[in-house]
Amino acid sequence: MDIKSLLPHIELELQKQVSRLDQPRTKLFHEMLTYHMGWTGEGAGPEAAGKRIRPLMVLLCAAACGEDWQKALPAAAAVELVHNFSLVHDDIQDNSPKRRGRDTAWTKWGSPMAINVGDALFVLSNQAIIDLKTNYPAETVVKVAEILHNTCLDLTRGQFLDMSYEERTDLKVEDYWPMISGKTAALLSACCQIGAVLGGADEETEEAYRSFGHYLGLAFQVQDDILGIWGDENVTGKSVASDLVEGKNSLPVLIGLGKKGKFAKRWAQGPITPEEVEEVARLLASEGGYGEAKEASIQMTDMAINSLREADPQGEAGEALFELTNKLLNREQ
Amino acid sequence: MDIKSLLPHIELELQKQVSRLDQPRTKLFHEMLTYHMGWTGEGAGPEAAGKRIRPLMVLLCAAACGEDWQKALPAAAAVELVHNFSLVHDDIQDNSPKRRGRDTAWTKWGSPMAINVGDALFVLSNQAIIDLKTNYPAETVVKVAEILHNTCLDLTRGQFLDMSYEERTDLKVEDYWPMISGKTAALLSACCQIGAVLGGADEETEEAYRSFGHYLGLAFQVQDDILGIWGDENVTGKSVASDLVEGKNSLPVLIGLGKKGKFAKRWAQGPITPEEVEEVARLLASEGGYGEAKEASIQMTDMAINSLREADPQGEAGEALFELTNKLLNREQ
Repeated sequence: MDIKSLLPHIELELQKQVSRLDQPRTKLFHEMLTYHMGWTGEGAGPEAAGKRIRPLMVLLCAAACGEDWQKALPAAAAVELVHNFSLVHDDIQDNSPKRRGRDTAWTKWGSPMAINVGDALFVLSNQAIIDLKTNYPAETVVKVAEILHNTCLDLTRGQFLDMSYEERTDLKVEDYWPMISGKTAALLSACCQIGAVLGGADEETEEAYRSFGHYLGLAFQVQDDILGIWGDENVTGKSVASDLVEGKNSLPVLIGLGKKGKFAKRWAQGPITPEEVEEVARLLASEGGYGEAKEASIQMTDMAINSLREADPQGEAGEALFELTNKLLNREQ
Repeated sequence: MDIKSLLPHIELELQKQVSRLDQPRTKLFHEMLTYHMGWTGEGAGPEAAGKRIRPLMVLLCAAACGEDWQKALPAAAAVELVHNFSLVHDDIQDNSPKRRGRDTAWTKWGSPMAINVGDALFVLSNQAIIDLKTNYPAETVVKVAEILHNTCLDLTRGQFLDMSYEERTDLKVEDYWPMISGKTAALLSACCQIGAVLGGADEETEEAYRSFGHYLGLAFQVQDDILGIWGDENVTGKSVASDLVEGKNSLPVLIGLGKKGKFAKRWAQGPITPEEVEEVARLLASEGGYGEAKEASIQMTDMAINSLREADPQGEAGEALFELTNKLLNREQ
């Protein structure tokens, strides 16, 4: 089971789902979606499309339960469409002009059109789930739909918390987990659970896959938070720290605020400028922000790996799952 | 079957569905939805909630097919949640500060939060559909979900057309129908079809109900367009005409543009001011904009009534359907 060999099949299924809008009167609308998905327009290509981690997880988990992954393709497309719906709306909400080096949908076509592009991606994800009825009994379609819808409500909850945190100055570490559970972990958790359901796993195994996706999502996000302040520690001396300038309520920052030390004092005084960012990053690290976040990342990673072991994924797909997890979490095999 | 007696049951089911967000961390998020739904905040009440036509149609069509309407309540809630999702996003897209005399969600909480409120209403509609599984076999749940998802794609198509028409000056009458088919008729059509499916109707009857909802939606929209320019003709002398000032591409306007007469010339010169609106409305009427739109409205109304007769709705619910249709389309019984 070569991950690279799955990717073209995922793209084809996604293109099939999005082609529902490819009609004479809605050509431009269809084009907005194909641009966002990374297939058309300037800068189109794999770089613009992203890594398709979520659909890969669906297919690998299904295959690791002994299922023909081709049958799970509509579900793989559905989760990627949900992910992209949330990206399009996120970019409007965060006022982000660029994503993966390209203009975002709202930059190109304005917010009103971009809101509608996101809505359409969401509808298409629902339609993709219904396509499962060709390969699975209606009970399975309903179960998968229910998992995905519950996840989408978690996404809106996480998004609400993220936005409402922007104005707060009293945030604690315990406010962090519900937010990223919704924003990052919920969808990865659903991907793995849906793969297991389509693979015909028993309840216990399904729960192990769900748990694997959940902790994978948490570990991934914490790691992303660390990289957002201190960069890739393997790339010597390179500090990005843009998250500090943007005032992002990441885990290291919330840990730092809890210390009520020099970092918390500086943070309360207003936005960090690019000039002082290296110094503030060093200050945060010296007060435990780096070490404790790293510890949390290791803990979540261990829980992800343990859940995956418990799920006991089979065959080449099982090996690919461990491989992908280690790659995502930057661990040596 | 008294329509008024159904309304409290619809509100209760809607409140149950929305209560999924009523959790400690998301109290304010829940409040945003209950405000928009017309249950809380200043101006709360039936006026703010709207007429709940769509859920009523689901329940009446199901009952008119001999079904216990209580079993169809989750579907009734689902269509109303879809309607409200589209209202919240519409208000942001149209930059409308007020709806039914109250501040819109984006006016109160800003666009980023309001986008998320709309998204949550959409997710809740999906979850409501899944609740049907308590009362219906999974095949029926999948069928109803499919009808609703297809309708939602039509909604995004109609919204795209509406927004893309704003910049165009070459619009024709034939551009009108695909837009309002998506924006208004698709959801009413789905309400009636879903009611029939839940009522266990055969394919032919299901199609008659679908067709009834479709033409009801078209007739209703054309009538709304006429009232938007010439007001309620029963209320002597009262001219609203706000649609002309807003530059809305309504049916009378597109008919007028097609005449390439004095109205078209004036329209091309830029926005109509409130001072000249009465004169422009008279001009449009004299060039056929009123008469031809009225004719289209009568034609669509006849087709709606004919489809409803074909569906042959039974019992008190059937009577209520004819009554509601006549009321909505301002026809004498």
